[in-house]
Amino acid sequence: MTRRPFVAELDELQQRLLAMGGLVEFAIHRSIRALIDRDAALSQQVWENERRINEMEIEIDEQATRILALHQPVARDLRFITAAIKINSDLERMGDLAVNIVQRAVSLNRQPQVKPLIDVPHMSRLVESMVHKSLDAFVKRDPEMAHAVLAADDEVDDLKHAVYAELLSFMERDPSAVRPSVDLMFIAHNLERIADHATNVAEDVLFLVNGVDVRHSHSRVVDDSGVRAG
Amino acid sequence: MTRRPFVAELDELQQRLLAMGGLVEFAIHRSIRALIDRDAALSQQVWENERRINEMEIEIDEQATRILALHQPVARDLRFITAAIKINSDLERMGDLAVNIVQRAVSLNRQPQVKPLIDVPHMSRLVESMVHKSLDAFVKRDPEMAHAVLAADDEVDDLKHAVYAELLSFMERDPSAVRPSVDLMFIAHNLERIADHATNVAEDVLFLVNGVDVRHSHSRVVDDSGVRAG
Repeated sequence: MTRRPFVAELDELQQRLLAMGGLVEFAIHRSIRALIDRDAALSQQVWENERRINEMEIEIDEQATRILALHQPVARDLRFITAAIKINSDLERMGDLAVNIVQRAVSLNRQPQVKPLIDVPHMSRLVESMVHKSLDAFVKRDPEMAHAVLAADDEVDDLKHAVYAELLSFMERDPSAVRPSVDLMFIAHNLERIADHATNVAEDVLFLVNGVDVRHSHSRVVDDSGVRAG
Repeated sequence: MTRRPFVAELDELQQRLLAMGGLVEFAIHRSIRALIDRDAALSQQVWENERRINEMEIEIDEQATRILALHQPVARDLRFITAAIKINSDLERMGDLAVNIVQRAVSLNRQPQVKPLIDVPHMSRLVESMVHKSLDAFVKRDPEMAHAVLAADDEVDDLKHAVYAELLSFMERDPSAVRPSVDLMFIAHNLERIADHATNVAEDVLFLVNGVDVRHSHSRVVDDSGVRAG
């Protein structure tokens, strides 16, 4: 195995993560467009994209492990590698969640549209901006931007609860609204999970920059039902 | 910082992961009992447990990072550390999902019971056994056991679809069944996600034992809606 310069390895690792992040952002955006435009061709793009994201996850893990073995980094460089391993995993999960959204969009497109999509497009714009900002914070090592991502997570959660409440009322009033409403509910749920992963990335950035682990210390809501954990 | 013997550090790291795994298994079991027995006191235990799981996640990450920095392991020892970092994250997520289940159980307990809980208790027994087996496979470095976990994941997925189908019919027939059915649907969804995390742990065990990354190579289903990805 040739031993490449350490700095070049770190730079390549970061470039790969950003390329993967680009694919994930594309997937999320397309999955929501497939929903809004009722467009099956867009769904196909998300599925194809997913395969490439999965390959990249493995390549990035291999590279990170190789750097650990060959260069034995310490301090901030070591934090960079462990952050990269975690961000990699979060990005891959976001790609999975975009596929989940597309599956629900395909199911919705087989049914008559019950009504405009309520707050889902609004929610998705906010989530997309969180994902983008979390990666930007990573590149720029910018703690302010990372904190902005953490703050946006609460707003996403509020939006999700508003969407849930409205969909539950629909379903109670009209049995024919049950199936499409459940699909929309899971789309909102998947968007909120993408936001959670963007939050994880932001937390990793803060750990990388400050060396302080902020997980579980801000008002992270694991809430899934309207009942808040203590 | 005192430099403890490498073998002792690795052993302690494994013991901590197992202790955390024990808490997570306890949380999953209690969350389902809170549902079946309609018992609010059990919910409280799951919330208290969650705080300890979160602390352990941070302690384990810190220890893993310290071992990387001080001992610079290679080959199988390095794979052990990277597996430990990932298993740690999967266990913490399982703890979150048990809290989600408890939140839905609390919501269900405020409503009249619509009917016996269908396949949810069956599903939960299977998921609990997957979690237990994945940790056992990790301790014993047993690839057969890890493969058994991967196989069980498909069964959980089938059960979840059966639960969804039955609940959708309920909701369409009876508007008063909408809210409790949605709660049960999300409980089934959370159980399936716990199974996914157990699958991740099993994949990490296979990587640790064989040095081969099996992610995305077996018939992993990211399906969330009944439509299968290619």
